[in-house]
Amino acid sequence: MSEIKPFVTLVGAGPGDPDLITLKGIKAIESADVILYDALVNEELLTYAKDSCTKIYVGKRAERLSTSQEYINKLLVDYALTHGHVVRLKGGDPFVFGRGGEELEFVRQYNIPTAVVPGISSSVGLTGLQQIPLTYRGISESFWVITGSTSDGRLSDDLYHAVKTNATVVVLMGYSKFQKIIELYQDYGRGDLPIALIQNGSLENERLAIGTMDSILQQVHKNLLGVPAIIVIGEVVAKHQSFERIRKEIQHLEA
Amino acid sequence: MSEIKPFVTLVGAGPGDPDLITLKGIKAIESADVILYDALVNEELLTYAKDSCTKIYVGKRAERLSTSQEYINKLLVDYALTHGHVVRLKGGDPFVFGRGGEELEFVRQYNIPTAVVPGISSSVGLTGLQQIPLTYRGISESFWVITGSTSDGRLSDDLYHAVKTNATVVVLMGYSKFQKIIELYQDYGRGDLPIALIQNGSLENERLAIGTMDSILQQVHKNLLGVPAIIVIGEVVAKHQSFERIRKEIQHLEA
Repeated sequence: MSEIKPFVTLVGAGPGDPDLITLKGIKAIESADVILYDALVNEELLTYAKDSCTKIYVGKRAERLSTSQEYINKLLVDYALTHGHVVRLKGGDPFVFGRGGEELEFVRQYNIPTAVVPGISSSVGLTGLQQIPLTYRGISESFWVITGSTSDGRLSDDLYHAVKTNATVVVLMGYSKFQKIIELYQDYGRGDLPIALIQNGSLENERLAIGTMDSILQQVHKNLLGVPAIIVIGEVVAKHQSFERIRKEIQHLEA
Repeated sequence: MSEIKPFVTLVGAGPGDPDLITLKGIKAIESADVILYDALVNEELLTYAKDSCTKIYVGKRAERLSTSQEYINKLLVDYALTHGHVVRLKGGDPFVFGRGGEELEFVRQYNIPTAVVPGISSSVGLTGLQQIPLTYRGISESFWVITGSTSDGRLSDDLYHAVKTNATVVVLMGYSKFQKIIELYQDYGRGDLPIALIQNGSLENERLAIGTMDSILQQVHKNLLGVPAIIVIGEVVAKHQSFERIRKEIQHLEA
């Protein structure tokens, strides 16, 4: 039996569509002895693994009920020491609210070498697939990706800053804070600002709601959107192909 | 001869390493009749194209001297109408300062259908490869990607907002504004804030400079960094494996 060489690679699986992983990500999966994967990872990706690879599910849909982070950290180390190459396969990108930094830090305490393979974050990928440009000359010089789910349950302070800027804002895991976010923008006099929600992005059951802060709630209800969804806020949302049509519909209803 | 079906796909080529393109991106290249590609695209990716595919370079290293946007827009339409499927292959992600939105808008005026294949933006990918987490519980609840190269040459207003927040800030195309950005943070009393520069990220000649606002210039000169480089600002930079060592070196030199 060959010597075990412990190694941990964090791999971003992308936003859902299995074709939205990178080649480098596939190569990591192919060489994995163990894969620990999350709920938002498309299980089709596991077919790239070799037959002898141990595949362990460590996620759950409702975030707060997921396998504890401490337990996942421990599994990473235990499997690396006993099996060799552990791939930690995470939805989107490992460092965009993925707690990838904590996992790396824990693993390094055991002198286990690590690597990261970036993934398509839903913030960039799902807006792209919907042909909503995150930046646009003369409209937005930046995009700001903010969590809707802070560790203590409040609305992120960053959103109170963001409302004052022209940055395109993408809120991940923000569905439960959706009404609060709308109120924040309305209170700031920005009820006209375009906003979109994308649910199950990049998958066959993808759903979109698009409108303005003042009109989006009726669109969300009409299209029955729920979690997991990303929220996109900014003038660039008006660049979506259906925005003008929907705006006219709303104006017609309000007239 | 079969009928021409005009179609334009914007494809993100990723940050440099040809393995950092998505499978979906490769499939688009394989089906392309024409590829228009930028300077920052790794030319190895062109080998996925079929033999009959026409490959046209439309970039230049010095941004302002690149083939004019109007000309590229026109090429996209002309080739779609005469050849069929045109892939517009862009470095990073097509919508992160890639003027992808403008290209789509122009093409749609001719009723040519469009699609977008997202790519790994250097903002997410190059930080990931360096194992600098963009977000980290208790440290950063967001990341903000800002252009260093506004259309009128000034420092983006967004940076004046960003300096007041705990967001991780990534500045793309900001090398020429590097000193100005440091001064902005120093004027705001944040000279201790960690900062990193990554040049030629994901390629064999990748270079890194890491330090604090007050110390980074000597690191940049020591490592001879130049364009193209991305700038990463925030407490998360201190999570890089070499940060503590470099901080001690600097303290030793200053003592």
